[in-house]
Amino acid sequence: MSYIKKDFLLTNETAKNLYFNYAKGMPIFDYHCHLSEYQILENKEFNDLYEIWLSGDHYKWRLMRNYGINEEYITGSKTNKEKFLAYCKAISTAFGNPLYHWSQVEIEEYFGCTLEINEENAERIWQECNEYIKANKITPQSLIESSNVKCLCTTNEVFDNLAVFDKIKDKDYKFSVIPAFRADKIMNIDAEKYLTFIGYLEEKTNKIEGIGDLENALENRLNAFIKAGCKASDIAVEAVYTVSERDEADRVLRAVLKGNKPSEGDTEIFKGYLTYYLMKLYAKYNIATELHIGAMRNNNSVMLAKLGLDTGYDSISDKNSISKLSRLMDKLNNEGLLPKLIIFNLNPKMNTEIMTLLGCFQDDCARGKIQYGAAWWFLDNKPYMEKHLSDLCQTGHIGAFVGMLTDSRSFLSYPRHHYFRRILCNYLGTLIEKGEMTSNLNLVSRVVKDICYYNAKAYFEI
Amino acid sequence: MSYIKKDFLLTNETAKNLYFNYAKGMPIFDYHCHLSEYQILENKEFNDLYEIWLSGDHYKWRLMRNYGINEEYITGSKTNKEKFLAYCKAISTAFGNPLYHWSQVEIEEYFGCTLEINEENAERIWQECNEYIKANKITPQSLIESSNVKCLCTTNEVFDNLAVFDKIKDKDYKFSVIPAFRADKIMNIDAEKYLTFIGYLEEKTNKIEGIGDLENALENRLNAFIKAGCKASDIAVEAVYTVSERDEADRVLRAVLKGNKPSEGDTEIFKGYLTYYLMKLYAKYNIATELHIGAMRNNNSVMLAKLGLDTGYDSISDKNSISKLSRLMDKLNNEGLLPKLIIFNLNPKMNTEIMTLLGCFQDDCARGKIQYGAAWWFLDNKPYMEKHLSDLCQTGHIGAFVGMLTDSRSFLSYPRHHYFRRILCNYLGTLIEKGEMTSNLNLVSRVVKDICYYNAKAYFEI
Amino acid sequence: MSYIKKDFLLTNETAKNLYFNYAKGMPIFDYHCHLSEYQILENKEFNDLYEIWLSGDHYKWRLMRNYGINEEYITGSKTNKEKFLAYCKAISTAFGNPLYHWSQVEIEEYFGCTLEINEENAERIWQECNEYIKANKITPQSLIESSNVKCLCTTNEVFDNLAVFDKIKDKDYKFSVIPAFRADKIMNIDAEKYLTFIGYLEEKTNKIEGIGDLENALENRLNAFIKAGCKASDIAVEAVYTVSERDEADRVLRAVLKGNKPSEGDTEIFKGYLTYYLMKLYAKYNIATELHIGAMRNNNSVMLAKLGLDTGYDSISDKNSISKLSRLMDKLNNEGLLPKLIIFNLNPKMNTEIMTLLGCFQDDCARGKIQYGAAWWFLDNKPYMEKHLSDLCQTGHIGAFVGMLTDSRSFLSYPRHHYFRRILCNYLGTLIEKGEMTSNLNLVSRVVKDICYYNAKAYFEI
Repeated sequence: MSYIKKDFLLTNETAKNLYFNYAKGMPIFDYHCHLSEYQILENKEFNDLYEIWLSGDHYKWRLMRNYGINEEYITGSKTNKEKFLAYCKAISTAFGNPLYHWSQVEIEEYFGCTLEINEENAERIWQECNEYIKANKITPQSLIESSNVKCLCTTNEVFDNLAVFDKIKDKDYKFSVIPAFRADKIMNIDAEKYLTFIGYLEEKTNKIEGIGDLENALENRLNAFIKAGCKASDIAVEAVYTVSERDEADRVLRAVLKGNKPSEGDTEIFKGYLTYYLMKLYAKYNIATELHIGAMRNNNSVMLAKLGLDTGYDSISDKNSISKLSRLMDKLNNEGLLPKLIIFNLNPKMNTEIMTLLGCFQDDCARGKIQYGAAWWFLDNKPYMEKHLSDLCQTGHIGAFVGMLTDSRSFLSYPRHHYFRRILCNYLGTLIEKGEMTSNLNLVSRVVKDICYYNAKAYFEI
Repeated sequence: MSYIKKDFLLTNETAKNLYFNYAKGMPIFDYHCHLSEYQILENKEFNDLYEIWLSGDHYKWRLMRNYGINEEYITGSKTNKEKFLAYCKAISTAFGNPLYHWSQVEIEEYFGCTLEINEENAERIWQECNEYIKANKITPQSLIESSNVKCLCTTNEVFDNLAVFDKIKDKDYKFSVIPAFRADKIMNIDAEKYLTFIGYLEEKTNKIEGIGDLENALENRLNAFIKAGCKASDIAVEAVYTVSERDEADRVLRAVLKGNKPSEGDTEIFKGYLTYYLMKLYAKYNIATELHIGAMRNNNSVMLAKLGLDTGYDSISDKNSISKLSRLMDKLNNEGLLPKLIIFNLNPKMNTEIMTLLGCFQDDCARGKIQYGAAWWFLDNKPYMEKHLSDLCQTGHIGAFVGMLTDSRSFLSYPRHHYFRRILCNYLGTLIEKGEMTSNLNLVSRVVKDICYYNAKAYFEI
Repeated sequence: MSYIKKDFLLTNETAKNLYFNYAKGMPIFDYHCHLSEYQILENKEFNDLYEIWLSGDHYKWRLMRNYGINEEYITGSKTNKEKFLAYCKAISTAFGNPLYHWSQVEIEEYFGCTLEINEENAERIWQECNEYIKANKITPQSLIESSNVKCLCTTNEVFDNLAVFDKIKDKDYKFSVIPAFRADKIMNIDAEKYLTFIGYLEEKTNKIEGIGDLENALENRLNAFIKAGCKASDIAVEAVYTVSERDEADRVLRAVLKGNKPSEGDTEIFKGYLTYYLMKLYAKYNIATELHIGAMRNNNSVMLAKLGLDTGYDSISDKNSISKLSRLMDKLNNEGLLPKLIIFNLNPKMNTEIMTLLGCFQDDCARGKIQYGAAWWFLDNKPYMEKHLSDLCQTGHIGAFVGMLTDSRSFLSYPRHHYFRRILCNYLGTLIEKGEMTSNLNLVSRVVKDICYYNAKAYFEI
């Protein structure tokens, strides 16, 4: 039996009461993830634990590298089983790491395997889980449904094909799947394949020769997304840039369309304008904006050349400027076009400066219109989730919080919601038992259920 | 009965002993607040709980906005009672927020109301407190005296009328009121009304045509403040700027006096010089300097136009540079004119870099000559007060700490001192019970009383 | 009896078990300290507690200054005993400060004195400890051997005489002493005595007229260090600078050799290139690099003129740029010459951005090839050691950690290893008792012993 017990992370009776009687049973609305709508549609049975668990998860790869595992066992030519055994070795002593918890929880929750993950048990875990996967015909659908997910938003590029979402609707799934609108590939004007991406966009819309054409194309696509059910958009930038003039952005875009490489300065000009334009567009259509800031990507150029993007070589940036964020929000607000906004910030040292800024732009168009998003990526672990909750309570209003998302790349990631809910219930339960807040469970349980589900449901107007 | 019990925040017997037997009864010396000397002099009876509690408190307004309350219920046309009820709704689930604690403590401590603040109880709280206010003829004097305040320093602009302080002396109050010298309106050369403020200063002193005149005027006014009992000065800047040349500051000032708008660079030049000049002046007269850094003000220009300054639209800045602060202090120290200095820093990520710098400029002219001030504004809450104490213990010397201030804009803010004292006693009591420090209560209680009162009294030489 | 009990810092049974049965008895490999190889060779008996404890320890001086002690009692003309008494006064209420713990532990561990340090006991402590020192003929050798140190690396400038290490080998010590290679005096091209240091280097190697000569000289000396057993190198810079061109560094060096003072920009050019060159050199010879970043030095120029370097006037810098560190590491990695690297960062706000970057450059040439070093200098205290462990667990892999170093300037500093080990065991023991990690003590005890000793031994290939 593994160290994960029923009361995992719940250190007192009030916390247990809140979790088991109020939080645990709430459905999940996963408003931001990286699951594949095609895999959900195809709904193929999985073959083994490696395929479902390790094959695409750069979090796990990174942990193995941190333990000095040879790359052959991570992304190389070793067999699925050899890679699995190497992962078990690495994770067995990764005490305190969130993957140490998640991995253990996931094999229990989805495959009923309660063996502690370590080198000794690895062989049996491989067998037991693979047998379970075969015997129970595990598919994306079965995993999502058993997780009590009501709705999930995949993250889609603006030129993605949306017909797939209609086809998913025709399936007899107990959950809905809708696209979130992400224009990152159109934002990143310095990327090597930029003109290819512009080409994809043109195929779906109109010829793009300047900024006006681009704006038309983006608005056109956003309307198509909205027809497919879209409620949320996503912008991921290393930092918020100065809002630049439309003319300047036009100049940069035209030069790039002619085949020139943009300078670093011109790249920032373009991104600064496009961030601003997109947020205005989202405000116009009442689409919530999820702004992800603070990732410094592709640090290791050797491995970028070998493995490509999103393979575990990103880290936390220190580049964001709070005054630029302030000016961007103020400009949009001045024009009456500040959208509902959730800021996900990756650098924890910037928590309080961002949180206090957000409080300057609230209004009653939504409860918690401007949100400080849940602890994310490198911060998606117990200490930083607790710090996030504490900072949010001190400088914001916990009752308005839209709660957890998965940001997942794997169908096994939903236990992260339970992880978050346990931490939330333990945080509040501990305050109650210490006499630092009301013990009126009518009030407290309402807040718990709001954060688990209802706030997000109301916020995104699902 | 509300969740606030006698032992609130005191988690062990030693902490309780320290608080109830040593800290609780100590008087308060409030060396920095924003109370109005005119209101103290007038001493009018309050009409209702809204007037005394909500009418001027932008902390509370902000919390309501964070919960999505319509502005009509905050600063708009709704009645006092409607606004009060809206606040009760917003605060009832603001778990963990310092206002959640303070609000509950304040109505109990000043009006004997132990009802838990929530929507259900709101009506009764409104009635009970208002009856108490009427029945007991609550005034500024009664609130300050019942709080055991011995002395308080109001924050005054250099051109403020000081006669009011003499008139307060003639009253039969059990506390003294003295002005703290603040030249911010003369510092902020880029403000719209700058020439108006210069005019006010000229009325009290001399014609101002250049930096020499300005220096004379400021020294003149400081002498007048000292005659009125002044012991402390206050400088509030977003960040510490490079110390610039007097000639350069003169050039900037003369241009502005001629009606020109200063550039951002010229503004920094002027502020850089004036900060340096003022600190030299304070050293010359042995006036302690309270330097507040790290606020980014007026982020929301729509609301600035509607409601004006100090209405809840400020946030935490990331602009301060530790090397500039080092050079400023070093230059003053070189000239033998580094004043007693308390730095209040709003950005918690800068705690340790500032604290360790301060340790480089201590001397024996005062115990703890250079102080890291108490957790302030957005940080004036339990987790950040605990972090402040911990960081101070690790990198400084807790025994030299001058302790808490209110920074209050309301006569009900003194329970923040008790809040701080409970946290202090719990911090030390916990270390004692964990065997991490001496249990010799002669030593420990002396430190507790020093931090509550005697250190500040000695430091400001009251 | 002092407040330090057997179970100091160990709050539960599992933590005690881990500490007493696994951690406590492990030997010490001190891979970075500032002890003097000459004092170790001479091995003179100490005269009194002042000499052994206070005479060279700027940590203690700083604490006294923070308490307002007159400099005469710190570095001035007062007697050894007067200074000792003043220290006892200052430390007696420095609750929470690491020196408060270390001082108490050190007099007990080395001189059997269990009196609590305060003004009342000071006289008796002075007598008891001095008697012990005389009676037991306390020497560097006896202190190091009683601390169970197997090997220690002194920090040596590139031009230091290495014959002393051979002479130490001939002594009958139970520990070995090897030099770590530090080129800081050659790095700091803006220092007043730079040409003197170049002269010292030339005496040991070749005439230096340009960057090529300098590189030859450095490689030459590194080979000499390696013959003396060297396994580690050390680079201390305020921040990581942009890697500049060799030609540019050559230009700057030649100008300085001709007697010119380098500009701030040229200084950064030179340091940027030399950091890069040295790390390539260390990679070539498989010498681990210890990179210390984040100290802002000599803030107080008055005291610098009076007392010189390293006298307690340094603080934490905010200058480091994560993108420059990323580019430096990527460039070295691209060239296949990224050395084993331990980054010691002094500014805790940068913990997570640095830790996540390090995870982008791991490979299997060593377990934990790129290390985030232990909490250091101003962070070498309980809360920041706990934060370091927590951050490391969340974003790295605790099992690969090479553990504690002393960075000491005193032969009494080894209890810091026990301090660290208690904190480590308590951290893991608490996770176990809370059900957040395995209770399989085979696994856990292996990790504990690895972190205490074996990981460092393997990493440095001693």
